[in-house]
Amino acid sequence: MSARTRSWWGWGYDDGHQPVEALRAAAPAIVQQLGFGSAEVEEPARLADVLATLPAPRVPVPAALRGILTTDGEQRIRHAQGKSYLDTVRAFRGVIEHPVDAVARPRDEHELEAVLAWAADARVAVIPYGGGTSVCGGVEPRELGPRFEGAVSVDLGALDALHELDDVSRAARIGAGASGPRLEEQLRAHGMTMRFFPQSFELSTLGGWIATRAGGHFATVWTHVDDLVESVRAITPIGAWASRRLPGSGAGPSPDRLLLGSEGTLGVITEAWVRVQPRPEHRASRAVRFPTFLAGADAVRALSQSGLLPANCRLVDPLEAQQTGAGDGTTALLVLGFESTDHDVADRLDRGLAICREHGGSPDEPRAGGAVSAWRDAFLAMPYLRDTLMQVGVLADTFETAITWDRFPAFHETVVGATRAALGEPCRVTCRFTHVYPDGPAPYYTVIAPARRGDEVAQWQAMKDAASRAIVAAGGTITHHHAVGRDHRPYYETQRPDVFAAALRGAKAAIDPAGVMNPGVLLPAEA
Amino acid sequence: MSARTRSWWGWGYDDGHQPVEALRAAAPAIVQQLGFGSAEVEEPARLADVLATLPAPRVPVPAALRGILTTDGEQRIRHAQGKSYLDTVRAFRGVIEHPVDAVARPRDEHELEAVLAWAADARVAVIPYGGGTSVCGGVEPRELGPRFEGAVSVDLGALDALHELDDVSRAARIGAGASGPRLEEQLRAHGMTMRFFPQSFELSTLGGWIATRAGGHFATVWTHVDDLVESVRAITPIGAWASRRLPGSGAGPSPDRLLLGSEGTLGVITEAWVRVQPRPEHRASRAVRFPTFLAGADAVRALSQSGLLPANCRLVDPLEAQQTGAGDGTTALLVLGFESTDHDVADRLDRGLAICREHGGSPDEPRAGGAVSAWRDAFLAMPYLRDTLMQVGVLADTFETAITWDRFPAFHETVVGATRAALGEPCRVTCRFTHVYPDGPAPYYTVIAPARRGDEVAQWQAMKDAASRAIVAAGGTITHHHAVGRDHRPYYETQRPDVFAAALRGAKAAIDPAGVMNPGVLLPAEA
Repeated sequence: MSARTRSWWGWGYDDGHQPVEALRAAAPAIVQQLGFGSAEVEEPARLADVLATLPAPRVPVPAALRGILTTDGEQRIRHAQGKSYLDTVRAFRGVIEHPVDAVARPRDEHELEAVLAWAADARVAVIPYGGGTSVCGGVEPRELGPRFEGAVSVDLGALDALHELDDVSRAARIGAGASGPRLEEQLRAHGMTMRFFPQSFELSTLGGWIATRAGGHFATVWTHVDDLVESVRAITPIGAWASRRLPGSGAGPSPDRLLLGSEGTLGVITEAWVRVQPRPEHRASRAVRFPTFLAGADAVRALSQSGLLPANCRLVDPLEAQQTGAGDGTTALLVLGFESTDHDVADRLDRGLAICREHGGSPDEPRAGGAVSAWRDAFLAMPYLRDTLMQVGVLADTFETAITWDRFPAFHETVVGATRAALGEPCRVTCRFTHVYPDGPAPYYTVIAPARRGDEVAQWQAMKDAASRAIVAAGGTITHHHAVGRDHRPYYETQRPDVFAAALRGAKAAIDPAGVMNPGVLLPAEA
Repeated sequence: MSARTRSWWGWGYDDGHQPVEALRAAAPAIVQQLGFGSAEVEEPARLADVLATLPAPRVPVPAALRGILTTDGEQRIRHAQGKSYLDTVRAFRGVIEHPVDAVARPRDEHELEAVLAWAADARVAVIPYGGGTSVCGGVEPRELGPRFEGAVSVDLGALDALHELDDVSRAARIGAGASGPRLEEQLRAHGMTMRFFPQSFELSTLGGWIATRAGGHFATVWTHVDDLVESVRAITPIGAWASRRLPGSGAGPSPDRLLLGSEGTLGVITEAWVRVQPRPEHRASRAVRFPTFLAGADAVRALSQSGLLPANCRLVDPLEAQQTGAGDGTTALLVLGFESTDHDVADRLDRGLAICREHGGSPDEPRAGGAVSAWRDAFLAMPYLRDTLMQVGVLADTFETAITWDRFPAFHETVVGATRAALGEPCRVTCRFTHVYPDGPAPYYTVIAPARRGDEVAQWQAMKDAASRAIVAAGGTITHHHAVGRDHRPYYETQRPDVFAAALRGAKAAIDPAGVMNPGVLLPAEA
């Protein structure tokens, strides 16, 4: 893995992107399939050109921190923003609007504390950085306001070790900087797995998952990383915040649940105890077709209320199933799967399929067409595909939410309608359920539209604003698992209780008196 | 139910306590069975005598609140404390150390707001009161300090209605003051149930459950009320805190999870949307015997890591099984049960029993001996039994915790040892698991010892202190589901992260600027 190079502008690794020649050859087919886009393939800006115009850092690095902090230009650019469409299209065009002034890479908590102390003193905003995969402006030093002299990105990459493994309790203490593959590789040596697979798995980190309440592999019950966390340790400006390792507790509000979703505004998560398990030996899954997405949704509601607790219960609408090669566009696709480390799950799948049939579903033959694996492969490749589409003049983005079942049909119509209206024709707005609960689904929307080349930022902002307003107005959450960051904050502010915001401000003021922790995320920087 | 009278001094209803004649007849047998206690049956103090010495309220009730607030003596006594052993033995002897000065019974949120506004202005401590079943000093105005002129108990009993039922999403909006039976009675009219059955079910309320993170019926996964809450509404001194109805969300730290466990320190919970379900049609359960408690614990660990997710997985040690009439004292008893609204669960029980056998367990014949129902009946009667034992000179109390599996055997030995040492011989310290997780159990301890009559408070305090210190020193939590209140605060303070306490103080200061909300709970009153 060490030979692979991270893309400086787009998703993931350079080798995940198509060479431009291949893209030129493929472009006409893409354009024909979508009915829009351009065979004129654009290439990303050159890093050297961006470096040449990079402004000097606004803050000097103190001598004592020279081994921890760097002002290397490439590092400052690579840590300047996340991987949202907004971030990627800007970088693609060579626009790095808010380069960080320095990048810290602490090798232990003492070094981290030294960075936080300096930042508070020098009025430098601190932006914790895990895999850099934020899709909501979580790591970009935007909207800092006049209080700050600059911004430092704190890369937790060096804190990636598996420290302890308790195979009796099935739990592991792991450094927050461990990426998905790094974490799983270390657990595998002990015959264990965390089985937490967000779409960003290849790059995102344990600390980032916790900070943003990431959504994982399991479609029911253990949907967020919250449900796998046993205890969390963070360094805050006033000291270490370390909860006890406990399987459960009722002693006051959960300290962990206040860090979960804090998005770097309260402190820097350095490690956590998480629940692990052996690899599941027993699996059973099947693809089921439904005449419409809403018919499939009725079946998924019944499944989510059945107590069968499928590991996989991902409903994909007809157009999205077609786009990912898992359908012909005439039916919605449900990928229904069960897994267990202990016992056969074939009976659960049978009962799940019976529920599907009761709701008009037609199960595929076992393994016929390979719809399950086709969908999974497409799932992991999707973020790369977004970049490919950008190069051929197509705007592609995703957003996600959750809503109760009673409101879902009207909600869905409203959100799709508002998004389509903002993008104009032709466009595609598709939907899948990533996670489901007895009381409602977490719908995940994908939008694809002809890009207004050179004006994508404004185009995207209009779409994002329309979709976000529709979601919040119709009763949903601005994010089920992507986080709030800076992009979602205006909508988050209309969603969360004002009194809770006051409480959060009070909590933050108490432990981050200089207000340097990720200002502008969750709360305005002025707060 | 309206004809039943709540006991003013002990648990539950008067009719749940033995008449003194019956107790006199039964006392010799109790003494003989335990090997300690006294055949001299004590009777509780008379309420009239306590009323005669009740000090006058320290604060005048403003005219505008006369319809909401009362200073009636009996009400002030009935709301003065909870139902811990400490509370009960004091009341039994006619000692009401900290009578509240007034009792408010708001009929709606406007009346509640008026009470909070008055209290902040008049420097009166506000103590939210649900079922009054706190066993940790959660409702007693102790340790108020000089800042307060007095204390008002805010009884939520009038806010007990089922407001809305969404049978599509299987959720209901219910007033916080609804007791377990009242809540279930209203849901039953719609064919639904919350299936949340703490031991205090008969009296405790939805708001109390949420404020204290109560533990319910389900032994795995959905262990705390936290897992059934969809949204919460509370009135705080600066206004209403109402979260959205969402099946799941990742938008910042969960507002609900900050109210869950806040124990009245942030505001008064007035209602919540909770997940409900039809009554489960499919059930299967069995009693399993193990040669020792630790052998049973190994089996329960395997069960908790199996993904079978039993509804019931309560392991009771040999002596406690005997005490409750569910065993002969030679074996530990596991009550293993499964339930489903959707599908047969016999296969899960079969697999669960196979795991038990692999760990040396011997399942009873189906229904043989009725151990399952015997244990359940005893479970609900236990709090009444405590009062009975008090009358015959026996100290009886319970405390509970949680710990990871790897540490459980040594932890158990330490906690039992410290508790036995504090009580001296003869005494009984027994244990059961109320809830279990893949990474550890929630052990629940029962202590029975000869009371030092007239000196029970000091005797209890020594035991409580020894047990609590041992729990926290050995890595456990001071409470898994009984809450912190005032009794557990000194130990909680050594358990929870100091930085989290600072955050909580900051949050409280922001929304309760006068500091009137349940001072002394979770945080010192001075804070």
